[in-house]
Amino acid sequence: MENLLSERIKSTPPSFVRSILKTAADPEIISFAGGLPNPVSFPQDDLLKSMERITKTYGSAVFQYSLTPGIFELRDYIARRYNKKFGLNLTYEDVLITTGSQQALDLAGKTILDKNDGVILEKPSYLGAIQVFSQYQPKFHMVELTEKGLNIEQLKQALNNDIKLIYAIPEFQNPTGLTYSKENREEVYEILKDKDIVLIEDDPYGELRFRGEHLPYIGAGRLKNSILLGSFSKTVTPGMRTGYMICQNRELLKNISVSKEASDLHTNVFAQYLIWDYLEHNDFDTHIAKIRELYKKQARAMLDSMDKYFPSNVSYTRPDGGMFLWVTLPENVSALELFPKALEKKVAFVPGDPFYINKKNVNTMRLNYTNADCETIQEGIKRLGELLKGL
Amino acid sequence: MENLLSERIKSTPPSFVRSILKTAADPEIISFAGGLPNPVSFPQDDLLKSMERITKTYGSAVFQYSLTPGIFELRDYIARRYNKKFGLNLTYEDVLITTGSQQALDLAGKTILDKNDGVILEKPSYLGAIQVFSQYQPKFHMVELTEKGLNIEQLKQALNNDIKLIYAIPEFQNPTGLTYSKENREEVYEILKDKDIVLIEDDPYGELRFRGEHLPYIGAGRLKNSILLGSFSKTVTPGMRTGYMICQNRELLKNISVSKEASDLHTNVFAQYLIWDYLEHNDFDTHIAKIRELYKKQARAMLDSMDKYFPSNVSYTRPDGGMFLWVTLPENVSALELFPKALEKKVAFVPGDPFYINKKNVNTMRLNYTNADCETIQEGIKRLGELLKGL
Repeated sequence: MENLLSERIKSTPPSFVRSILKTAADPEIISFAGGLPNPVSFPQDDLLKSMERITKTYGSAVFQYSLTPGIFELRDYIARRYNKKFGLNLTYEDVLITTGSQQALDLAGKTILDKNDGVILEKPSYLGAIQVFSQYQPKFHMVELTEKGLNIEQLKQALNNDIKLIYAIPEFQNPTGLTYSKENREEVYEILKDKDIVLIEDDPYGELRFRGEHLPYIGAGRLKNSILLGSFSKTVTPGMRTGYMICQNRELLKNISVSKEASDLHTNVFAQYLIWDYLEHNDFDTHIAKIRELYKKQARAMLDSMDKYFPSNVSYTRPDGGMFLWVTLPENVSALELFPKALEKKVAFVPGDPFYINKKNVNTMRLNYTNADCETIQEGIKRLGELLKGL
Repeated sequence: MENLLSERIKSTPPSFVRSILKTAADPEIISFAGGLPNPVSFPQDDLLKSMERITKTYGSAVFQYSLTPGIFELRDYIARRYNKKFGLNLTYEDVLITTGSQQALDLAGKTILDKNDGVILEKPSYLGAIQVFSQYQPKFHMVELTEKGLNIEQLKQALNNDIKLIYAIPEFQNPTGLTYSKENREEVYEILKDKDIVLIEDDPYGELRFRGEHLPYIGAGRLKNSILLGSFSKTVTPGMRTGYMICQNRELLKNISVSKEASDLHTNVFAQYLIWDYLEHNDFDTHIAKIRELYKKQARAMLDSMDKYFPSNVSYTRPDGGMFLWVTLPENVSALELFPKALEKKVAFVPGDPFYINKKNVNTMRLNYTNADCETIQEGIKRLGELLKGL
């Protein structure tokens, strides 16, 4: 058996979160481990109306094979929205629809990375990105993420290696909830602007800002090898697996599109029409505003409870948006070893380990606040606090 | 730019069909080039009813993130159907839902193939398979496909190389429309049964047999590294991108599932519930019988017209099912050179070249008969016949 498997798959870690989720499937457990949007945010009734409308209006076109980059209508909607809201200058040809953002990462990795190519990640980074890039067996270089953004000195040092790709989540980062400052973005841009490196800015949570103002992208609209990722998973529905990649380097995007074609021909075309129709027929910004309010309240409930129940030797981030925050335990405390004890108290989180490359028993953990109501959050944090006080 | 691309993507050919389709987008052109099911076969009204039902019954579950291998209900349905109809002995755990069969090929390639690993393909083979496996830079070995199935001597010779994977479409093969005989399947099985090689049997058209009896699988249910692929694209709707992989080697399937997780987390869960609900609430076999009748009539229309209009130095296959047939022109006639002349006559086909590895100007072409009505087929074949007579 072993000899039938590729080196690639042997170097790909299974998702820690997904294994944990199985352990934490007990419905009595209060789980801060997942990364699920709150289901009350799904516009189910409006989506059902859109389903009826597109089936009646477009008939077989919504059920037939379709073009690899996605349907014109949705690509065009996305281009216009980014032009209007974020000052970009896109046409539909700069947009490729993907089967969720996760696929966008896979396609980028596939198209760009050969074995041993250098990849820069934030430290810590999104575990799904570590997993997907691992398939292409690159050399990872991690650059510390601080309250301000990337550690600039470490970034410069990392760039002394043979780097092809940088992966960053500048807004409400997963796992830390941290956001790069405007100044930090500018510094990163200045360092990258003359380099032949692809920068992937992953922005699944950008619309979910509940404090402060939208900050300019690092690369989108100005770095020649910029890839910006977005998704409808956190604003409409994740089950439909509809994400997108924005890239104005047409040559690069054309190659990524070949890789998309080989990977799944095209993304579910019904889902593309559905989301486009939903966006055209509803007030999307009002819908997003409601989600933002909801998550603001839930984040506040979590932070207030942490202030109340966590001992003073435990610190945590205070996100301006998104879905996660990051807890730092006293040095030498292993969040991984804490995990089974938390399960005994019927509360779950993700220990920090899988967000690093080859680090074990770190003293950090990720908490999600979007998928439980405020009371449940308070109860869960109280239980976690009791555990932390006993350390 | 060049230096940013992976070797992988540089060795991946863009799909010939998809480039052709653009050329042939003129609505006046009669196209036998695509591989589209007839849209009259999509059960749109019943699917719309299922959409309402699943949205009302399961609510947010059909819109939320879900498990990587797919929903239990659909996996279980597939396992039971194959047990009942095709005598297999499956449980839902042997079934992985994929984003179309194309993704199943990608996941298999990803999980199994390292650079320079040996892959055996039929000669000619499905161009999408050549494309997707090319990404993993294997060494291809082609084994001639005859009216009976694989050329056994060539298969034995090819197996002298270091082979990890065999890819075959034993029923109504794409592109040739040929079906392996029962004896040939048995011979192939005997050759493979003690070898540590993965056999992928791709079976997207198996349900679309309009002549003869279903034949036993080569590997499914008996070879330890057997992967059987299926799809709802040709029987329900391709736009929903819902395919599946059947593999009773749990260790292999577990690894493929990790690769699935990295590639797109999971397949559109709404589509999974939708197709499952549709299958549970409708008479699927009656629906398929209608498609079979339709394609039988269309295949007959094409063959009768070819008998009438094609010159006698042109030969062609007579498929027992599926969507394609295969035309062999006189030696030294290049189907590729014929293509622009056919376009002038407003008719399109796929020249044989992309179904081979590194062959140019072959004298074969693929014709699809499922996506046009009988009259249109007759008219298109007449035009093609005029062209062929003038050679």
